[in-house]
Amino acid sequence: MARVVVDVMLKPEILDPQGQAIARKLPQLGFEGVVAVRQGKRFEVELEGEADEAALKQVEKIAETLLANPVIENFEVRAL
Amino acid sequence: MARVVVDVMLKPEILDPQGQAIARKLPQLGFEGVVAVRQGKRFEVELEGEADEAALKQVEKIAETLLANPVIENFEVRAL
Repeated sequence: MARVVVDVMLKPEILDPQGQAIARKLPQLGFEGVVAVRQGKRFEVELEGEADEAALKQVEKIAETLLANPVIENFEVRAL
Repeated sequence: MARVVVDVMLKPEILDPQGQAIARKLPQLGFEGVVAVRQGKRFEVELEGEADEAALKQVEKIAETLLANPVIENFEVRAL
């Protein structure tokens, strides 16, 4: 069984209000020194077979099609 | 500047309907061989100073307090 991770983050130039809300809340909770927070998604995909080149290629296609919005998000695929 | 990643995933025993919806959609899109998908969150936290032991400890506290719900989610903290 192959386990592949897909990390999806908003592109740096895209505003991330969720991350900003977290960053702004931190000082009120006593956490100092945090400059910025960005929130994204993480997917764990389990596939039949080995986590080989072909499996990673397939998950890359899945990420492009279904898991990420390539207009506003970057994604990274790697074996777990 | 330290960059620390927090990965937050539902505990294995907690149902993940979002992940299941994705897994069920894949065969209709022509993607075969995917057994399961789990969806979680990924945070990138930027802090002043070095990504040392103290920074990781602080982000761990932040994750416990604000980023994850420890009742239903596991999280992992690591320097980027």
